[in-house]
Amino acid sequence: MPKKVVLAYSGGLDTSVAIRWLAEKYDAEVVTLTIDLGGQKDLEEVRARALKTGAVKAYVVDGKEMFVQDFVFPAFQAGAVYQGQYPLATALGRPLIAKLLVEMARKEDAQYVAHGCTGKGNDQVRFDVSVGALAPELKVIAPAREWGMSREEEEEYARRHHIPLVIKKGLYSTDENLWGRSIEAGPLEDPWREPPEEAFDWTRAIADTPDQPLYLEVAFEQGLPIALDGEEMDGVALINRLNALAGEHGVGRIDHIEDRLVGIKSREVYEAPAATVLLKAHQALEAMTLSRDQLRFKAKVSEEYAELIYNGLWFGALRRDLAAYVGSTQQHVTGSIRVRLHKGNCTVVGRRASQSLYRYDLATYGAQDAFDQKASPGFIHIWGLQTRIQAQQQPEEPPDA
Amino acid sequence: MPKKVVLAYSGGLDTSVAIRWLAEKYDAEVVTLTIDLGGQKDLEEVRARALKTGAVKAYVVDGKEMFVQDFVFPAFQAGAVYQGQYPLATALGRPLIAKLLVEMARKEDAQYVAHGCTGKGNDQVRFDVSVGALAPELKVIAPAREWGMSREEEEEYARRHHIPLVIKKGLYSTDENLWGRSIEAGPLEDPWREPPEEAFDWTRAIADTPDQPLYLEVAFEQGLPIALDGEEMDGVALINRLNALAGEHGVGRIDHIEDRLVGIKSREVYEAPAATVLLKAHQALEAMTLSRDQLRFKAKVSEEYAELIYNGLWFGALRRDLAAYVGSTQQHVTGSIRVRLHKGNCTVVGRRASQSLYRYDLATYGAQDAFDQKASPGFIHIWGLQTRIQAQQQPEEPPDA
Amino acid sequence: MPKKVVLAYSGGLDTSVAIRWLAEKYDAEVVTLTIDLGGQKDLEEVRARALKTGAVKAYVVDGKEMFVQDFVFPAFQAGAVYQGQYPLATALGRPLIAKLLVEMARKEDAQYVAHGCTGKGNDQVRFDVSVGALAPELKVIAPAREWGMSREEEEEYARRHHIPLVIKKGLYSTDENLWGRSIEAGPLEDPWREPPEEAFDWTRAIADTPDQPLYLEVAFEQGLPIALDGEEMDGVALINRLNALAGEHGVGRIDHIEDRLVGIKSREVYEAPAATVLLKAHQALEAMTLSRDQLRFKAKVSEEYAELIYNGLWFGALRRDLAAYVGSTQQHVTGSIRVRLHKGNCTVVGRRASQSLYRYDLATYGAQDAFDQKASPGFIHIWGLQTRIQAQQQPEEPPDA
Amino acid sequence: MPKKVVLAYSGGLDTSVAIRWLAEKYDAEVVTLTIDLGGQKDLEEVRARALKTGAVKAYVVDGKEMFVQDFVFPAFQAGAVYQGQYPLATALGRPLIAKLLVEMARKEDAQYVAHGCTGKGNDQVRFDVSVGALAPELKVIAPAREWGMSREEEEEYARRHHIPLVIKKGLYSTDENLWGRSIEAGPLEDPWREPPEEAFDWTRAIADTPDQPLYLEVAFEQGLPIALDGEEMDGVALINRLNALAGEHGVGRIDHIEDRLVGIKSREVYEAPAATVLLKAHQALEAMTLSRDQLRFKAKVSEEYAELIYNGLWFGALRRDLAAYVGSTQQHVTGSIRVRLHKGNCTVVGRRASQSLYRYDLATYGAQDAFDQKASPGFIHIWGLQTRIQAQQQPEEPPDA
Repeated sequence: MPKKVVLAYSGGLDTSVAIRWLAEKYDAEVVTLTIDLGGQKDLEEVRARALKTGAVKAYVVDGKEMFVQDFVFPAFQAGAVYQGQYPLATALGRPLIAKLLVEMARKEDAQYVAHGCTGKGNDQVRFDVSVGALAPELKVIAPAREWGMSREEEEEYARRHHIPLVIKKGLYSTDENLWGRSIEAGPLEDPWREPPEEAFDWTRAIADTPDQPLYLEVAFEQGLPIALDGEEMDGVALINRLNALAGEHGVGRIDHIEDRLVGIKSREVYEAPAATVLLKAHQALEAMTLSRDQLRFKAKVSEEYAELIYNGLWFGALRRDLAAYVGSTQQHVTGSIRVRLHKGNCTVVGRRASQSLYRYDLATYGAQDAFDQKASPGFIHIWGLQTRIQAQQQPEEPPDA
Repeated sequence: MPKKVVLAYSGGLDTSVAIRWLAEKYDAEVVTLTIDLGGQKDLEEVRARALKTGAVKAYVVDGKEMFVQDFVFPAFQAGAVYQGQYPLATALGRPLIAKLLVEMARKEDAQYVAHGCTGKGNDQVRFDVSVGALAPELKVIAPAREWGMSREEEEEYARRHHIPLVIKKGLYSTDENLWGRSIEAGPLEDPWREPPEEAFDWTRAIADTPDQPLYLEVAFEQGLPIALDGEEMDGVALINRLNALAGEHGVGRIDHIEDRLVGIKSREVYEAPAATVLLKAHQALEAMTLSRDQLRFKAKVSEEYAELIYNGLWFGALRRDLAAYVGSTQQHVTGSIRVRLHKGNCTVVGRRASQSLYRYDLATYGAQDAFDQKASPGFIHIWGLQTRIQAQQQPEEPPDA
Repeated sequence: MPKKVVLAYSGGLDTSVAIRWLAEKYDAEVVTLTIDLGGQKDLEEVRARALKTGAVKAYVVDGKEMFVQDFVFPAFQAGAVYQGQYPLATALGRPLIAKLLVEMARKEDAQYVAHGCTGKGNDQVRFDVSVGALAPELKVIAPAREWGMSREEEEEYARRHHIPLVIKKGLYSTDENLWGRSIEAGPLEDPWREPPEEAFDWTRAIADTPDQPLYLEVAFEQGLPIALDGEEMDGVALINRLNALAGEHGVGRIDHIEDRLVGIKSREVYEAPAATVLLKAHQALEAMTLSRDQLRFKAKVSEEYAELIYNGLWFGALRRDLAAYVGSTQQHVTGSIRVRLHKGNCTVVGRRASQSLYRYDLATYGAQDAFDQKASPGFIHIWGLQTRIQAQQQPEEPPDA
Repeated sequence: MPKKVVLAYSGGLDTSVAIRWLAEKYDAEVVTLTIDLGGQKDLEEVRARALKTGAVKAYVVDGKEMFVQDFVFPAFQAGAVYQGQYPLATALGRPLIAKLLVEMARKEDAQYVAHGCTGKGNDQVRFDVSVGALAPELKVIAPAREWGMSREEEEEYARRHHIPLVIKKGLYSTDENLWGRSIEAGPLEDPWREPPEEAFDWTRAIADTPDQPLYLEVAFEQGLPIALDGEEMDGVALINRLNALAGEHGVGRIDHIEDRLVGIKSREVYEAPAATVLLKAHQALEAMTLSRDQLRFKAKVSEEYAELIYNGLWFGALRRDLAAYVGSTQQHVTGSIRVRLHKGNCTVVGRRASQSLYRYDLATYGAQDAFDQKASPGFIHIWGLQTRIQAQQQPEEPPDA
């Protein structure tokens, strides 16, 4: 009986070539699995292409709801943004795909799963480690890491085997799902060069955005967005709507030099309109509802959480521990944030929360001031005590003298 | 012989009333000290007012150079931004003023120093702790914390004592120096309300900014800005120039809910055009020149550094320790960053550095790719080992199942 | 109707004097509350003394079970040890006492609660902040912080008012509960002087301990100790037993310079036999059952948790968040640890756990070695990549040259 | 002309076989380098064996002084202890050996350096990464990782090639230098089994230690030990003396489950008498001379520093940054610590420091008390403010209810 491999299939050149290559090299039946995470391809066409290229079966699965509920939202509540820049769209999609690959491999009694990643990126790590955690018995194959073909050789291989090629638009390597779109390669590899306008697809250039700002009210319940301008909607719909609205106003472009897990610095460009708006709004609501101590420590948790997602450790025990922490912090993060989208800016202009720690009577300098200023000298006396003692006991020139 | 007090004098109502109140209450001669940190007042007029109000001497000192070199730049290299939002302009000015107060008190043989802070803010802490560290023998007086007068009572006191009043423009309480302008109180005390346009002074509203973007190249040497578009200039001049340029393009407005050291959450609005541009550019240059490990740990140091500045501990030993750390990180942070200022946005669009860790031959997906993909499977095998072991030894439903 | 105050009553001089002083000063009825946390006093005698001294009612409550379950065990699972030395016995007792004071005040319709702390320690903070969190409507009175009497004046006051005095043994100020005994003051205030043997009560001097070691097996389930040498017992009994056994072998003495929240460094001596043994054993079990990443991050959580307990913030939201984190980490911390108690040493000599991450086949250098050494060169190539790049791009003399 | 390889040569089986294997496999001349870091072997004999086995040259270098000054002491001042247990003796020796290998390779015009590490430990990483950082042009060979021979096959190879074998005593794999001795393998691979007494060489069993304690005074200057009982000595001599004294009293045994960088948990036993005494004493002196804030942050730096040493990143930029931080902290860590060595215990019993932050007048409860208790209520009011607000605004059952 032939071996069987379940391949995560995007419909692009690499995974199309992989169908044939896997069949030959591993003498295996190839079952493809294409998962809809909200990118904008025609997946029925992708499915047809898989079968035409030689897959024995070709599945298309809608993963959007699971993606938002089980991957995007936990990371969102954590405030996970890698190196302060990247909202982790692709990084969050990989463990979900790995999970569905494993489920499909079990259903199909496959011995292998395969993915299209090369050997120099982060995604290979995310796939391999996730599958290893969920199904150590499965072997993971990464054809593009193994075969050693250049782009040209791949194309030649495709022609030779009559593999239908999709015309790739532009010079870039891209990936997209609901939470964001990533763009690399081509002209972006020169870090001194401004990203050409053609690299962007979800967001308008500032010059092309409306002159009038858009005001938007985002409602949250326990740290999750539940409504836009009073209209309740589910996570997938809300993110889609926000991607459209914020993209129209030019919000959500990110361009930075990023450290890959494998030690390479690379120039990464992202479009993440919804993520940008939601993360800002969420942060503003937390500033109203979490104590200073909670905010301070949650910032450390956010960094740790973002790193582990980026580094492929979603299914590790530390993530579960951090998620328990984050869950506890979110129970009072309920309220509304008003943002203004305008000419590429997303600005928080209003916030309210029924369980807010902002207290007008303590904050005001007006007549209703309830803060007891008499407590301050005592506080300062003790707050500064060690600094005073140290200045006396360990005298030195002031550090900036 | 009468006692003597050196008062940090801004020329406003509180410190003007304080001149008279200190003279009476402490039976002391009042020497005023007004320090120019780059705010836009006419300081000769302020000086005259001090003398007219009853000061026996009135000093005006230019502190701009010292401010930039000894306070702003060390904090800048550290990337110190409180709660991810506030570049700490006022917080950095206070220890400098405290230092000059102490020096003046010694010169004048004074027994007291005084400042105009109330008892509910952060600045009282910064003054009191700094003076305590530098001159434990001096007593610090904070008249506005002691006297218990309301605004109206103060004005009545001023009239009664023929203290020349300055007409206060607007409803806001503001403070400004080279590094930024802070605006509080009045309508801003309602966190749901968008800041009125009149609250801003240094930055244009987006609708009033030029339609054409401004591209600007900022050159850095060892983490400090040294030139704009190739023109070398000293720190004070460079910051002034950037405040004007970026302000014209609407860059540098900040609006957030901030946790004061004394436990109050308050709504703080800032304008910090130069700080915004420089911090973004510096961060982009560090992304090119620091390793991932350096970036990760420096992020922790930045938070700690920002907190201690905010909390009045500039003259503590921990700041000196952190400064040594930061100094070490900056030795290769040399290069140029190109930014685009446009409609309120400051976007990094190019970066170059002679000692960059970005390597085209490792990053590229093109023909010159020098990265050895064969190393990856071994790396991933070991990187994921504990996650795999743990999944086997401690099985459980996947955390998101 | 007279006001009423509930006083936390220990039976010592301060709180005895306080009964009378509160009645007079606040014209209030004094209800005393004495809580048994496992110290060794005769509490019926304490109760009688309260009534004799003027209390209108005197309650004695057994808080041991609640103490262990709700305060000691959560902190224990967190590994909370202040400044790496102090297992927080007293610090954990205070919020419990505050909670019971609040409950009693509500039951008794009291307007005040009172405690015997002075104004220079940590305990005043723990009481005041805890009561403020649980019952902001209650006023907290700290007579010993207010009255300004010296020890001699207190004794004179007691004599004058016929307050029965207990003869204080020794020169020390002590506090004790199940989790430990603290000793301060007297000769200990000289940090160069070795603590006199008489300062200790729970632990033998090394010279007086048995020559034969005691081997003991501690069983844990989900991070909590459940049995000694195979005998299951509840938390209170287990801690009592361990205090006796380990104390006999001289285990659990701590002597260090500690930073109080109020900025004072003080010399603190503790006896904590059970805590010492259990914390070591728990740590050894975690080394078997938590991943490296979990251990690394939990160390940070432990420090944060210890600080907030020490600093009186038990009832803050951050503690709840951290507890959620800790709870998640403990689910596989199940197994047995064998310790040897001998001549003051507590040494872990064996560990086993059914869900251990220690794998013989990976660890061994023997014939069963299952680790794939071929993965290492690839791992090292990538692990060291940035260090190599940086050494080339940013050459410098080796830091230790 | 033949290629040349410089081999780090210990004289043991692996590196002896490697001499021959390298010559054959790489057709290269083998130069051996043996570095004296304070282990107790006869290095002249080792040298002779190298030549006899086929080395073309055999160097023996005394690295003790450099080891202590440039590696041990910086790590010591940092308080670097991996996972709270391991003082890093071997881990600190590796980068030094790598550095001397590189220097020798340059002197000898060699193309390769080689070491005897297998592919499953940490030391291979430390060598490879260090050499890569110092001399990226050199290729590193690890014969024992490549050749795939079992112990028996190695011995057979040795016999076949007439390689003089040293009789290995015992069942353990050991490594030693001035800073400590590590013992692994054999019976230690069973974590439930107590280490057999024969595994230890530097420390006596408790039963065999003197009945009388030894009191010892260690003097420090700027964080480094400079004298024992008043007798000044250099670092090497001081560590040697302490190893002897503390070892005689049974101090310095460590037994724990350790996480290797390659993902394996392994049981590691160490003897580190001098390191144990010095680290405890140093910590006690820091508790006297560093502020609470300094201690809190330095604890984080210590962990980070220990991890990077353990993980082979000594020559990375982060180490240099952290070293700058540590250097700043040590400038007032000057004074004397008195310890008692007795029956396996090292107990700090006295500390004094001219620039101590411990102030008797603030700490004492006696007549000289200078602490102003009146400051406390104000301090506590503000310290607890957010906790009170939060308890009111976000009511819930107390977390432990």
